[in-house]
Amino acid sequence: MSKVKAQISISLDGFIAGPNQSEEHPLGEGGMDLHEWVFKLSSWQQAHGRESGEGDENPSNAVIQEAQEGTGAVVMGRNMFAPVRGEWTEPAWNGWWGDEPPFHTPVFVLTHHEREPLEMEGGTTFYFVTEGVESAIVQAKEAAGDLDVSIGGGAATIQQAIAAGLLDELLLNQVPIVLGGGARLLENLGEPAPKLEIERVVAGPEATHLYYALN
Amino acid sequence: MSKVKAQISISLDGFIAGPNQSEEHPLGEGGMDLHEWVFKLSSWQQAHGRESGEGDENPSNAVIQEAQEGTGAVVMGRNMFAPVRGEWTEPAWNGWWGDEPPFHTPVFVLTHHEREPLEMEGGTTFYFVTEGVESAIVQAKEAAGDLDVSIGGGAATIQQAIAAGLLDELLLNQVPIVLGGGARLLENLGEPAPKLEIERVVAGPEATHLYYALN
Repeated sequence: MSKVKAQISISLDGFIAGPNQSEEHPLGEGGMDLHEWVFKLSSWQQAHGRESGEGDENPSNAVIQEAQEGTGAVVMGRNMFAPVRGEWTEPAWNGWWGDEPPFHTPVFVLTHHEREPLEMEGGTTFYFVTEGVESAIVQAKEAAGDLDVSIGGGAATIQQAIAAGLLDELLLNQVPIVLGGGARLLENLGEPAPKLEIERVVAGPEATHLYYALN
Repeated sequence: MSKVKAQISISLDGFIAGPNQSEEHPLGEGGMDLHEWVFKLSSWQQAHGRESGEGDENPSNAVIQEAQEGTGAVVMGRNMFAPVRGEWTEPAWNGWWGDEPPFHTPVFVLTHHEREPLEMEGGTTFYFVTEGVESAIVQAKEAAGDLDVSIGGGAATIQQAIAAGLLDELLLNQVPIVLGGGARLLENLGEPAPKLEIERVVAGPEATHLYYALN
């Protein structure tokens, strides 16, 4: 059955972005270090239109490949579509993902501003949802068919999905760095706290992939 | 070569004790749930003088067994020896570990109060160290010989050892619960932040064992 899942890279001290986010450091200071492990994988490179990278000798590659192949639609927060406040409703601003975004599926963007769908190259169409995360997930499930819905982020969007009891699986890509500050993932999860169960663990050389089932 | 290591159970949101620690809840609300996975293991039961529990069908059992067999001395903070403030310097107060503590090695307790060593049954002797964590580790290394020194906790003691650059290996027993508050492990680790490397991952059914090497 189709699942609603989220995967996100997280530091050992629980941050998904570093401190002092700014235009210069959109992921906060040190935040890019959360993602170094993924850039070198062939599954990631292929989604971004390149042809090299580490293959299955790195167990992290299968994690990314599996997540990509299983995903039929994506839900994301407004800041993940376009981090620059104020500008993105201009017709010219099509997000920061370039002409051919790496999703290759419908993407439902949470926002307070209505906007016509935006069809990009390579199979990605951005739909703009003003009715909140539950509505976005319903629409994404419809679009995904038998495939899974992936909550792409950011932290607040994943938190809302967990608090609403709508997330089935959380994959933490735990990176052995200490950021010391920034945006935390595992707070504001609602009351009572969500129940999680260890589903699977994959040990990569630079990230540990922890799959949790949520009740 | 002999290593200085620490192992500690930690919630998914980074707490090693729950919120609102009190006499009724010495580990904070929900904090005991961090340790349920260990109580049922035969390696833990044996160290506590019992004869049952889950064996090697549970991968967590080998984790605990290996840690116990490799440990030649323990360093712990004062609160881990005796959580009740004020009373513990009385001659009658021998800590909360009972007549036969589960360590079966020398244990070096950090304190501000000098006290004669305290020999317990089963091979545990408590030594009281007033010169700080570095001195305690030096003495523990001496006592451990070829075996490892284990920093038993609490959080502040492990943090001090990391900040002083004295910890070689950190084993996080990551439990899939969300405590929502309490005592965090991975803060106050000094500047620059420690560098960690994934050494090994063992997947237990109720805890994921993450071994990190520190530089």
